[in-house]
Parts: sequence; structure tokens; C-alpha cells
Amino acid sequence: MDDVLTGLLRPKSVAIVGASTTPGKIGHTVVKNLIESGYQGGIYPINPSADEILGLKVYKSVLDIPEPVDAAAITVPAKFVLDVAKECGEKGVKGLIVITSGFSEVGETEMEQELVAIAHQYGMRVLGPNVVGTLSNSDNLNASFAPFLPLDGSASLVSQSGALLIAIDAITYTRRIGFDKLVSIGNMSDVNFADMVGWLDEDENTKCISFYIEGLKEGRRFIDESLKVSKPIVVLKAGVSEHGAAAAASHTGSLAGAQKVYGAAFKQAGVIEATDLSDLFDCTLALSLEPPMKGENLLIITNGGGVGVLATDSAEKYGVPLNFAPESVQAELKKHMPSFGSAKNPVDLTGMAGNDWYHDSTKFAFAHDWVDGLVVLYCETAMTNPMEIAKSIHKAITDTGITHKPVTVSFVGGERSDEAMQWLVENGIPAYNAPDLAVRAMGALREYARLEAMKAEPIQNDHKVDRDTAREIIAKVRKDGRTGMTEIESKKIFNAYGLPTVRTELATNEEEAVSMAEEIGFPVVLKIVSPDILHKSDAGGVKVNIKDEAGVREAYKTILENAKNYKADADIHGLVIQEMAPWATETIIGSVNDPTFGATVMFGLGGIFVEVLKDVTFRVAPISEKEAAAMLDEIRGAPILDGTRGESPRDKKALASVLAKYAFMITDLADEVAESDANPVLVYEEGQGVKVVDARIILKKK
Amino acid sequence: MDDVLTGLLRPKSVAIVGASTTPGKIGHTVVKNLIESGYQGGIYPINPSADEILGLKVYKSVLDIPEPVDAAAITVPAKFVLDVAKECGEKGVKGLIVITSGFSEVGETEMEQELVAIAHQYGMRVLGPNVVGTLSNSDNLNASFAPFLPLDGSASLVSQSGALLIAIDAITYTRRIGFDKLVSIGNMSDVNFADMVGWLDEDENTKCISFYIEGLKEGRRFIDESLKVSKPIVVLKAGVSEHGAAAAASHTGSLAGAQKVYGAAFKQAGVIEATDLSDLFDCTLALSLEPPMKGENLLIITNGGGVGVLATDSAEKYGVPLNFAPESVQAELKKHMPSFGSAKNPVDLTGMAGNDWYHDSTKFAFAHDWVDGLVVLYCETAMTNPMEIAKSIHKAITDTGITHKPVTVSFVGGERSDEAMQWLVENGIPAYNAPDLAVRAMGALREYARLEAMKAEPIQNDHKVDRDTAREIIAKVRKDGRTGMTEIESKKIFNAYGLPTVRTELATNEEEAVSMAEEIGFPVVLKIVSPDILHKSDAGGVKVNIKDEAGVREAYKTILENAKNYKADADIHGLVIQEMAPWATETIIGSVNDPTFGATVMFGLGGIFVEVLKDVTFRVAPISEKEAAAMLDEIRGAPILDGTRGESPRDKKALASVLAKYAFMITDLADEVAESDANPVLVYEEGQGVKVVDARIILKKK
Repeated sequence: MDDVLTGLLRPKSVAIVGASTTPGKIGHTVVKNLIESGYQGGIYPINPSADEILGLKVYKSVLDIPEPVDAAAITVPAKFVLDVAKECGEKGVKGLIVITSGFSEVGETEMEQELVAIAHQYGMRVLGPNVVGTLSNSDNLNASFAPFLPLDGSASLVSQSGALLIAIDAITYTRRIGFDKLVSIGNMSDVNFADMVGWLDEDENTKCISFYIEGLKEGRRFIDESLKVSKPIVVLKAGVSEHGAAAAASHTGSLAGAQKVYGAAFKQAGVIEATDLSDLFDCTLALSLEPPMKGENLLIITNGGGVGVLATDSAEKYGVPLNFAPESVQAELKKHMPSFGSAKNPVDLTGMAGNDWYHDSTKFAFAHDWVDGLVVLYCETAMTNPMEIAKSIHKAITDTGITHKPVTVSFVGGERSDEAMQWLVENGIPAYNAPDLAVRAMGALREYARLEAMKAEPIQNDHKVDRDTAREIIAKVRKDGRTGMTEIESKKIFNAYGLPTVRTELATNEEEAVSMAEEIGFPVVLKIVSPDILHKSDAGGVKVNIKDEAGVREAYKTILENAKNYKADADIHGLVIQEMAPWATETIIGSVNDPTFGATVMFGLGGIFVEVLKDVTFRVAPISEKEAAAMLDEIRGAPILDGTRGESPRDKKALASVLAKYAFMITDLADEVAESDANPVLVYEEGQGVKVVDARIILKKK
Repeated sequence: MDDVLTGLLRPKSVAIVGASTTPGKIGHTVVKNLIESGYQGGIYPINPSADEILGLKVYKSVLDIPEPVDAAAITVPAKFVLDVAKECGEKGVKGLIVITSGFSEVGETEMEQELVAIAHQYGMRVLGPNVVGTLSNSDNLNASFAPFLPLDGSASLVSQSGALLIAIDAITYTRRIGFDKLVSIGNMSDVNFADMVGWLDEDENTKCISFYIEGLKEGRRFIDESLKVSKPIVVLKAGVSEHGAAAAASHTGSLAGAQKVYGAAFKQAGVIEATDLSDLFDCTLALSLEPPMKGENLLIITNGGGVGVLATDSAEKYGVPLNFAPESVQAELKKHMPSFGSAKNPVDLTGMAGNDWYHDSTKFAFAHDWVDGLVVLYCETAMTNPMEIAKSIHKAITDTGITHKPVTVSFVGGERSDEAMQWLVENGIPAYNAPDLAVRAMGALREYARLEAMKAEPIQNDHKVDRDTAREIIAKVRKDGRTGMTEIESKKIFNAYGLPTVRTELATNEEEAVSMAEEIGFPVVLKIVSPDILHKSDAGGVKVNIKDEAGVREAYKTILENAKNYKADADIHGLVIQEMAPWATETIIGSVNDPTFGATVMFGLGGIFVEVLKDVTFRVAPISEKEAAAMLDEIRGAPILDGTRGESPRDKKALASVLAKYAFMITDLADEVAESDANPVLVYEEGQGVKVVDARIILKKK
């Protein structure tokens, strides 16, 4: 465990620099909160012009404190913060909780960088600036200006919005969702989400990691850290505005948006994404109390009414569609309901169901091997007592002794149901006031299991590649002062990374063109090669389906003439003579350099799928072949690859392999490549492979 | 207002047939509930073997009651219900509330029909059987076995699930969502949702009509009644299982599913669809308290933090994306915030915002003409008092005197925020505990305005049609004992309803074929016409692009030969000679006879859009041209029709007109037509119209 971070977040002593004698001031509130939260470590208020605050001795400077200090909460005005940081460094403080605002959030970026530089010079870490502070139930620590410790629980939440953290602090009591720690992460000048992931994974009091994120720093490191984590992570990502798209030069670039790439990154990192604030709480509750749902069989038990129907709809919606249990299971369940009940799925115990039927059917179902996850629903009736039903369900679950599969509960009713649900939550069973929420929670537990399985997939990083050739070509392009690479340069780099392209040769005169065409075999395609002509077709620079020598000669002349007419001073490298690949399903692979996550690969089907429907999917590179295969399946047009309209299935295996190699290529060349497209990538029948027809790489501006 | 229904739902006196002296029995509970709800009308328990129940005189039969009786709540076992119904009829009772179960829900459909027959014979209406009963706050009436009257409010809810109704009754108090009436509608043997729509629209105490629906009866009438209504209707439709699709013979039939058609029907009926139970409550609250949002400009005011960001995301998601207010509005708003606040949208008053800023900015914004709807957000801070903020917001809204535009509120915080929100709701302003919910509620108010506008669109029903021809062709097909019509028969019917088809003539010999081809003009298409060969291409029964006489002769022979080989005894009507229409954008129009809603029209783009993506949309027929135009815009492939990839826009006007005519045709022939397809329908450039290439009509089995 990172001792410095621990010193910051679980300090054995805290100095409050800027402590105030005036109630209502933040420098006063933090001292008061530390005392009221029952903090047992040393509390050292710092203020050059006060002697005592709330009964505590006040020091002029941290340097005057006779004991060691782990964390310093800083509330002095921004202009004094750098000096304070130095003093803290001298004192040997481990971490600075910089509550003070007025740094990068108002444009004072340099001052913020200087603060971090000072801190690092002394081996300190910085939380903030512009934070509310940090709270920990297990340490009785409220080192913040949020009014009280949250309801105790086994999840920990880190929020990029301070205001929201304060509101959430209060919400924990009304929604009955408990947290061990609440951390306000502010401007993330130093400690960011990537740091928190690792530290919370090792924190013994945290079972579920919850984040409210507006924008990540060090996106790739966030993914890497998350992949190492053994606890569930759930995030609410706010802010759907697009970034980076405006400047995009490639096809892929124009399709990438922050939201899509963030969504992909979270999936890859094994992180569950919540849809809104309520959902963040709901998922956190389930993930902090229950294990993942490792198989596909969800059983729902209900006392009927509409709630069973609503739950069935939700099961479909949240990715845990219902199957019927085997006959033997149904037969046993039939014993715990009247004749007009149903042992299918949902199991309908009917409105006559009392404590015993709930207990017996729940116990049997939860213990049965067929059941991978159980949702128990109860619709409040006049004849039953919600608390007793809750206790019956709890006893049934406990009786089985099973802890490796999940259960969630929903009671639909009034105050008595609410109280029963609160009791369930306090006794370790997540309960929700609507059937769809209990099913949604189970969906999150199922997703967690799926993501965990995908995390375990190995990413191949020993592809045979010809790095020298690739780097040589790039060097040459750089020497020319270009960032756009020609088709033939791009294809050579593709080939260097083992990507199959149609055969493509550069001819610099007509005779060469003819002999190359004969070598490649007719029909061929001729295309202009010029860094000054990016839209070759518009310039009349492409001729397809050329069937003989005469055709090559004619096309050669026409294209050169067209190019000259299009742009008289174009730098023409020659013409490519290209194999005319037989038709196949058109797909597109591409990459962007995402501002948050770096090299990011895209896949989609060609034609209208990409142009009209924007039916594409992303992953941060590199990726495993299995993840690549998942990409092929998650676009809307996926059935095309499986063969529709009487066509045979396409070679998805080869396509996934190429996609993974492509992702490896852009990772390996991430320092140079800004964007790239392979478009179209033709996909043939199973066993027949794929071929990249056209290629484009755009280098980073340097 | 329907007096009989009023007698049933707002009775001046109630008999309880099957009243019991035993506490816990339903026949006892209903009497007790009537007394405890403070009902002021006559309460007459009926039981042949008791004298008094809870202090009330018991009668042996309804016929013994000396006063008139409006409603009879029946709790006797099913086998006695018919006799009781007769007695009630004799007595002159207006409506039967049949609580007793054991009718169609367990297969006793005949007994249920008999019950309705008896009731109608006496002019009575039946609620149920298998209901919980009916409750009305404005009548102090709890004629049910639900335990108490719901929290009082201005919405009324009708539920097809009795168990859910009981749970909702309790929920009204914990969620603080008020209802005037709760009606359990049970098996809907007689009174169904279509009846309730009209009656609740006239009910003076109902401002919003809320339904929990598992399946409608009389779907078309439900739409027609809803169209007449002047109040908002919100439904939660449970049960997504597909129906009717298995038996489908047409392309359209295979694409229609209950969920899609219900969704379309609700939209047409001007009904807002809730996504889940919570959403039903949330939408009901907004729609019962606020007017529709009639323009596009939503302004959000917040005190910052993450809630503004979350609300912005939601605005996009729920169909009310944010625009910036004009500079002058921003300038005025700037006066009510610190310099680092933002007057854009969301308006960020910052965490420093107190009562005055909230009041002043809310008042100014709500009163400003630019603002069509206002969402006010508050994230609980330590420095402010939620109740005071609530009162400031309420005063600001009231001060403007404006009632024609909506406001919704969200407070994010703990108990104090919850109390403040409760106060707001009690004072007529809908408030929600998450920012996305306040925005979602505004989205529902915006949708309501949009649906209202669409409801007002006239449906043309005076198309010039040649009904005689259409009916003659159908009569001929019926005479042949067929339900499948040939292409040429189908096209003649299409033409009779003014739908443009490619020219298509039937040739019964080679010479006819040649002369017809010459008349139509080359190139032409030849196709086999046989009711026994539905898949013409598979049978080698189609030849396209025939360019001259010789081609016609050759094709004629080949097709006949192929047909004979395919099915030796096929009844061959001849061959069609068809104009070969130039290529254009392919679309598909079709129809099904939906089991709930009847004639239903479908629209989609052809090719992969329909085959792979199932990118189609439905409406119950008939439809207005504007509604048809809306269908063209709501498919995912809609950009295709607007012209993509360098193509000019398609003739959407002509297409919408044809779609509306098509819907008129299937409505006009609804007694005969089961399913139909026009596939493809070619759509040309703007001004160039559309052409139906192939046609198929399948008649109902009779």
C-alpha cells in the first residue's frame, strides 16, 4: 500500500493550516468537523494570530508542532498556499488536502503546477486543490467542510464535484446507502482517479469503489490500474459534450466522441457505468453487498401482481433475460404455492404467499445449482407483514450458507415495506423500492462478472513486426515535413505490422506500370500517389477494373493529366498499380489519438452503416483478440458478418485477429500516429481471410 | 358524462353483496373500508344469515333495500355472481363492482360473458370481475379491500393489476404522489380503458389520467377516445412478450410485435409512455401539476456542482436539448450571481447562491418570453436552508402570475432537502430528488405538447377511390377460395386506392406478352403469376432487364418451363409484363391486422435496413399526412431520404402522401385484408414521386 497516500487519506494526525476562530468560516468548520467526527489522531490548528480554537492549542506554523504530522488541510487564500506547502514539506507532512480554490479552475494553472512541484520535491502528494476534503468512517475522520460523516457502509466514493459530494453526504442517510469513505478529488493536480483505484483496492474497509467523474486525467493509466483491481468499480460519467472531433482529418476521427471512447474505456477497464445519480447509488449498494452473478440463470420469485411482469420486462432490458428452470426445480417450487401459482420464471407464489412460502421457495431456489442469481419481489398485501417477509427471506438466504451467488430484493409498498427494506439492507441484502431496480442491480452484478472474465483475456504483445521499416518510412515522411502519409507509405507500415493489404506497387513511369500490372495480374486499379491530393477520386485520380496493357497505358496518361488539371503544382510520387480484390463485405478499421486515452481503435461496417448510422465501436488500444471479437458482435449491423440474405458467414476470426494487430500497431506507434484508417477492409468467407484495400495514416504534428 | 359509469365509480349508495361478520374476510373489509373512509352515502351490507355488521343493518338481498342503490360490490363466490347480478338488475343498480375472482382469468370465459349479458340487459355496467374495487378521495369512497384512501391529489390511476393497486395505495404516502381516484379494472369484461379515458376526462377532480396496462381490449376505440381527451394521459405498459408474429405470412407481419405497435398506438393517441413504475409516478406528478411545455427553450438554473452537468446530459437524453438564451437574457441573469457564475445554460448561480439569487433569477427567467420551460436545481450546501430556497423558488414562480408554462425542481441532498421538496409538491410545484428526474419530467411535459399538436392534425378520409373495383377483385379471390392475392390483383387494388405502381399487365400468351412489352416500352420485367408460386424468384419465375422482342419471347418460354419444373400442377394465370422502373431509394410499406388495434401500417427502408436492422416504424391506421411524414423521420436510416453520399433529397412529400393513402386503404378494407406489403417502393428525387414495384395482399381467413 502506498504509505504516502495512506498518510493523506487515513492520517494519524492532521494540521489545519488556516484554522479560524470564526464559526462559519471553512478554517473553523474543518477543525470542528474533525472534533465532532470523533477523530482520535492529533488535531493541530495553525493560525499565526490565535491561541486556541474549540479548546485546541493553536500553532503559528506547522513547523512548531512538536509531533509528526501526516496530513495538512490547507484553507488559507491561494496566494499563501505555495509557502504553506514548503513549510509542510520541511515538517515532513505526507499529504496536502488543498481545500483552497483559485487554481487551474480559474486559469491559475502555473501556480497549481508549482504547488505539485513543491510537494513532489518533498515526497508529498496533493489532494486538490479546490476540494471539500476527505472523510472516513473507519477512521472517524471528517477532514472536510462537509457537515458530517456519511452513513457507514462498505463502499467508498470519490467525487470530482465538491458540491455533489456534500449533497451525497446528506443523501446517504435518506437513501440508506452507506459509505466508508468520501473523497473530494477537486482539480486532480496530483492525486487523480488512477491513483485512487489502486489505493482503494487495498483499503480494507472498501468493498466497492464508486466514482463521480467529469473528466479523467491519465486515461490509459486509469485503465491499467483498474485492470489490476479485485473489487467492483462503478462510475457515473457526467458531461456528454464532444471533444476532439472538430479537428479530425480521418474518417475515424470524425466518428470518435468523448462519450463513445469513455464508454469503451470503462468497459475495457472492467468498470460498470451508471446511467444517473440514482443508478450510481443502486449499483453501489448491490456491488458492495453481493458477489458477481457468474452464470446466466436468473430466477425471480414474486407474489404476483404486476411486479412479476415489470421484472420480466426489466430482465430483458438489463441483459439478464429469463429462462425457465428445469422441470425438477419447478416441481419442487410448486410445493410452496397454491394450485393457481406458477413455477415458471418469474415464480409466482400468488398474493396468498406468507412468510413460510417465501422462506421455503427462496431457500430452495437460492441453494439450487441451476440458479446463478435470485431476485425476490414482494408486493405489499393487506394479509402479510413486510418485516416478517423480509426476515423470512433473510433467514432463507442465510440458511443456505451460500455466499458465492447474488440475491437482490424489491418490496413495492408503503412505509412498512420501506422499513422492511431498510432492515434488509442493514442485514446485508440489497433491497429496492421498484422491481425494475432490483433487476437492474442484478444486471450490474451480471455485467461485473462478464467484465471480469474479459479482463482476464491476455493481450498479445509479441506480434512479429518489422519495426525498422515502419520507423524508416515515418522518418522519411517527417524529413519531407509532412504529416499525411501516402497510400503506399501507409500500406507498407500496415504490412510491417502484419496487416494484409491488397498488393499495391508504386510505378513512376508508364513502362513500370505495365510490367507491374502484368506481374500482379489483371484486372488492376490505378491511382494517383501525391501527398497533395488527398481526395483521389475527386481529382479524377482513380481508374478501376483495368483489364489489359492498353488499358493501363491509357489510364496512366489520363490520371496524370487529371491530376495536373486538379492541382498544377502537386508533388506526384507516381501511380499505384493495385490488385483488384474481388468483392466482399466492406468494413472499416481506424484509429484516433484520444486526448484522454491515447491510441484508440475503431471498427465498423462500411457504406451506409458507417456513413448514415455511425454504427461503429471503439476500444482503447491495445486489445485482446477476444475483445476484438466482442467489437465485431456489438455493432448493430453485426448480423451482416454472420451471413444474411443467403450469404455465407464472413471470416470473423481473421477479422478479429487483424483488428487486434491493428490495435497493437497504433499502440506501438503511439508516439507518431495521430489518426489512421483502413477503409475498406474486405472480409471474405470463413477461412478466406480479409484484405485492406485502402490505407491512410496521419502523423502527429510535432 | 356517462351517468351509469358515474353511478358505478362515484355511487351515491353502495350495497356489499357477500358482506361478512368475520374480520379479515374481504366481505367484511369492504364494509369496514367504506365506513372508515368517511363515505357519506348509504352503505347496505347484504348477507342472508346476519343482522348487523359494524353497526350497520344487514339485508337478505339487494331487493330488500328500501333506498335506491347505485353500485353493488360483489364478494360472493363466483358461482353465485350471476344470480346476484340479476337481483341487482331488478333493483335498478347502476354498476357492479365484481371483486369475486374465478372468471376468465382461470378460463371461465363463458360465465364472464353471461355476467356482462345480464348486466347489459338491465342497463348496468360491470367493473371486473377480479378487482380490488374502486377508491375516490373526493367522494370519501373506499369501495375496495385496499386498506385506505390514497394520499389526496389531482391525478387518477387505473390499474389492470389488483396487487399493484394495493401496493400503489401505500406508496402514495411514502413517495408523496397524490391521487384522487384509484380504480382496479380487473378482467375488463365490460368497463375497459377506453371507457375510463372518456369518463376520467369529464371527472372534475382528475387532472392527469394514469394507467397501468398489461393488455388493452378495444385498442382502436382506446385511441379514438384518447384523441378526444383534453387531459394528459400517461401509461405504464407492462409485458413485452411478442404476439401474433409467429403466424405472419408477409414481410411486414414478421416485423410487427406487440411492443412496437403499442408504442405507436400510444403515440398516436397522444398518450405519454412511462418506462417503469417510478417513471409513471414521476410523469404523473408533473402532468397533474404543470401545463405542457409548448416551445423548445428549456432553461436550467442551478447552484452548480455536478448537478448542472448531469441535467445537461439528461436534457439531451429526454428530448429537450439546451439552447443558450439571448445575450440580453444572459446579461440580466448575470446580475444574480458572482462573477465566476455562468449565465449560459445551465445558469450556474454557484454554491454561493442564497434565497435572493434563487428568487430573482427564477422570477426573471420564468417571466421571460424566451423561456418555454424552467428547471430549477439545488444542490444542498452547508450555508443554505433548503426550505428557504424552496420558498424563494415558489414565491418567484407565483410572483410572475404565469400559469401557461411549466417548472420542475430538483433538490439533491438529505432530509432537509426532502422536506423542502415535499413542501414544494404540496404547494403545486413538482420536485424530484435527482436532477435527471426533474429534466425527465420536463421532457414528458414537452412530449405532451408535441403529441397534442400531432393529435390536432386532420386525417384525410375523402380520398378518391374506386371501391367497386377493389371489392370486385376481392370477391373473385374469395370465390377461388384463396386468401393470397396475386401481384396483379394486389396492384389493381393499390391502383384503386390511388397508389402509384409500376405499369404491370397480365399476358396469357407469348404474343400478348410481346405486344404489351412494346406498348409499355423496353426494358421490361417478366414474372410468373400464380397463386401457387409465392416465392417467384426461387422458382426461376422472374426475368429482368429484357431489352427487345426476342428477349420477351425467350423469357416467356423459360419462365413457363421453370414454373412447370418448380411445381407441375401450379395454377398459372399467365405472366406479368412490367415496366422496369429506374433505380431509386428502396423503401417498404406494409400492413398487419394487429390483434389489439386492427389495421396497422408499417414503413421502413429496404435492403439491409429492414432485413438486418429491423429499422421500421408502425402506426395504427388511418393516419394524417403529417403523422406519415413523422414516420419517415423517425427511422434510424432517415438521413438516407434526406440525401446522403452526394445524392439529392428524395421525394418525402410524395412518399408521406402515399403512406397516408396506404393507411386509408387498409382501414377501408379492414374487414378483408389481413396483411399486405408494397416492397420495394421506389422513391425518386424531390418532385419525381414514388413507385410501388411489387405488391402483395393477404386476405383474412373467413
